[in-house]
Amino acid sequence: MSETGKAIRVALLGCGTVGTEIVRLLTEQADDLAARVGAPVELAGIAVRRANKPRPGVPAELLTTDAAALVTRDDVDVVVEVIGGIEPTRDWLLSALEAGKSVVSANKALLAEHAGDLFAAADASGADLYFEAAVAGAIPLLRPLRESLAGDRITRVMGIVNGTTNFILSAMDETGAGYAETLDEASRLGYAEADPTADVEGYDAASKAAILASIAFHTRVTAGQVHREGITAVTPADVAAARGLGRTIKLLAICERVATDDGESVAVRVHPAMIPRSHPLAGVNGAFNAVFVEADAAGQLMFYGQGAGGAPTASAVLGDLVAVARNRVVGGRGPRESAYADLPVRPIAQAATRYHISLDVADRAGVLAAVAAVFAQHEVSIAAVRQEGRSADASLVIVTHSAPDAALRSTVDKIAGLPFVHEVVSVMRVEGEEK
Amino acid sequence: MSETGKAIRVALLGCGTVGTEIVRLLTEQADDLAARVGAPVELAGIAVRRANKPRPGVPAELLTTDAAALVTRDDVDVVVEVIGGIEPTRDWLLSALEAGKSVVSANKALLAEHAGDLFAAADASGADLYFEAAVAGAIPLLRPLRESLAGDRITRVMGIVNGTTNFILSAMDETGAGYAETLDEASRLGYAEADPTADVEGYDAASKAAILASIAFHTRVTAGQVHREGITAVTPADVAAARGLGRTIKLLAICERVATDDGESVAVRVHPAMIPRSHPLAGVNGAFNAVFVEADAAGQLMFYGQGAGGAPTASAVLGDLVAVARNRVVGGRGPRESAYADLPVRPIAQAATRYHISLDVADRAGVLAAVAAVFAQHEVSIAAVRQEGRSADASLVIVTHSAPDAALRSTVDKIAGLPFVHEVVSVMRVEGEEK
Repeated sequence: MSETGKAIRVALLGCGTVGTEIVRLLTEQADDLAARVGAPVELAGIAVRRANKPRPGVPAELLTTDAAALVTRDDVDVVVEVIGGIEPTRDWLLSALEAGKSVVSANKALLAEHAGDLFAAADASGADLYFEAAVAGAIPLLRPLRESLAGDRITRVMGIVNGTTNFILSAMDETGAGYAETLDEASRLGYAEADPTADVEGYDAASKAAILASIAFHTRVTAGQVHREGITAVTPADVAAARGLGRTIKLLAICERVATDDGESVAVRVHPAMIPRSHPLAGVNGAFNAVFVEADAAGQLMFYGQGAGGAPTASAVLGDLVAVARNRVVGGRGPRESAYADLPVRPIAQAATRYHISLDVADRAGVLAAVAAVFAQHEVSIAAVRQEGRSADASLVIVTHSAPDAALRSTVDKIAGLPFVHEVVSVMRVEGEEK
Repeated sequence: MSETGKAIRVALLGCGTVGTEIVRLLTEQADDLAARVGAPVELAGIAVRRANKPRPGVPAELLTTDAAALVTRDDVDVVVEVIGGIEPTRDWLLSALEAGKSVVSANKALLAEHAGDLFAAADASGADLYFEAAVAGAIPLLRPLRESLAGDRITRVMGIVNGTTNFILSAMDETGAGYAETLDEASRLGYAEADPTADVEGYDAASKAAILASIAFHTRVTAGQVHREGITAVTPADVAAARGLGRTIKLLAICERVATDDGESVAVRVHPAMIPRSHPLAGVNGAFNAVFVEADAAGQLMFYGQGAGGAPTASAVLGDLVAVARNRVVGGRGPRESAYADLPVRPIAQAATRYHISLDVADRAGVLAAVAAVFAQHEVSIAAVRQEGRSADASLVIVTHSAPDAALRSTVDKIAGLPFVHEVVSVMRVEGEEK
């Protein structure tokens, strides 16, 4: 391939961990990138919040604090956004797209709320909008979902998409320690941010789930429509209960196509759940991410790799950059937003999942019958029960069949008030098994 | 997305298991495909070898035995090839590409030998050539390698890409049975073809390895350049030896970027190897495929799913069909052949791998010293030794550091001739560990 094309000029927004890696790779791999794109790829400018911070390896003459001016400059073809935040980033990207610049973004929070606006601006000018790095870091996931599986019918996407919570849950599983103590350790090791809220409360995973569901089901889903529970309430008792059942606890993002009487809908949720230790997702530890995809024709697929970090995220960004740059060189565009199916998004109260419930109860006859009666009253069907006497009291472990969230909550409330129930030790959703 | 575009007309070559699935999906999912492509996708004709065979669900009026005429017909936009074979399939696809028809092929043997010619024909007319289904069935793998990782530097691709051999090796590991007996069982269950040569001798995996290496390293690699060993020589003793070391045996396709004094080269090989049971590939059983990719920035990635079968293969074909049809509708082209790096392909004799060797030896002093001396003479460095006395004789298990194939072969020949060596029980490459 001859490299005769006019250079593709890139405006980079943000020069933190990821941005610095992008600058490094653009420089070190310039020849390879030029050969793959069919034209040299050059940095036109780098927008940063503070221009005078030392940035080794970053050409100082390219730095600017005026992102708004940079993104619409005539000599810019593509805007790469790794600066984060909703505003003013959204405005910058809209201006860029309106001016016909293609955009590559790693901004999950922005895409999970405003993908519609951004795609509309891209369509109006014929620009590209790519954001592989927004979900699961280096793992090629959005491109496979929206291109490789474009001829298939995806029914389910279930994955571990947040490294911080996976690190914490893996550590709790290994050590038996509590959540707060393990979070402190994760912070000390650099696996949790100073303010870990977005990770541990599930906001980050919910944004990613919204993006995955939108692509998988050709339906616009925003982060606010995702049922979200974080890991802050996971206890050592939950972890021990999971272990006793041959299971482990993971924070899962689950996007499902649900058939109902009035047609299909989409359910998207993020919550901790017990999965069997034999499940492929159970072996995904620490900062790794993995996503399990089920489609009618393809069957089960799994994608695994590093979900965050400077270099892995930069890899995903550069893959997109090569694609949009190549589209500039040879003509053509990448996929547009595909939201034609426009399925309704179901509230969690209607979502049916299986549950595990561990109780400390008095060790006497009739307890199981009474507890089972409460389940029956609420029409929650029991799949398995295990009862173990321990001198004065007993442990009762129940796994339900698939039941609506609301019915399960009422059941547990009622059971907690029974006189012979000493304690509700653990209530946790169960995933990764046949329903 | 409005569906106002002129229909994209598809010529299908082959109507066996995969072709029938493609016809079914094109019919059942016609509305979804039209929405995703931006135009209806219609079958223009189906070329088959025997027109009068009963084919339930396949419109009889579309059948023809004249593939050569079909592929260049004016009303055909895209040719989908699932008929297999080298000639005359190659001629048909060249004619189609020369006539400006885009081609989607699942033909690994053809692509592994003639990708260069086919890409040249596609370039000359501006047509697309896609072949995701040629490697690892439904698993999105070629698109991630050639697009998602286009901004990264891939260093290694290692995978299980043949379901038949994986089924046989998994079964041998479970039952301890021999190769011939297990092959019979696989045939009976439909996991092995009547003539299993292409699978069990590694030809199928070698074609896939050539395709993977070509894309990963931007270098044209053909099947003939792949070092190939099948599984027919794997013995129950090998399987038992692996098990004793916490390992399992898989037929691996390995594509590596190798740094040498005179620059970089590429090594591509297919052979059985022991891998640790803790390795992600060790858990890939039966007809599933999985491919492990290592890249400088992305780090380690794994892709997992069904490697063969009608529906999974059809899923991959239809994903490509949507892409090439969409390129017709919106303009633009998919990636061309990328062989600019043009790295030399190294012969296996120069490839360095680790080896496991199990010996039955006389149980007396000095045996280990004598064996170790032979390794030292051949400059093969020993990583670990385990010796176990068993009354009159002893078992000696050696794992080497990375050593050239040629040096290892000479070492084993020499050791086999030593008077106190009763038997060379097992010699097997070791992969999936730090070197």
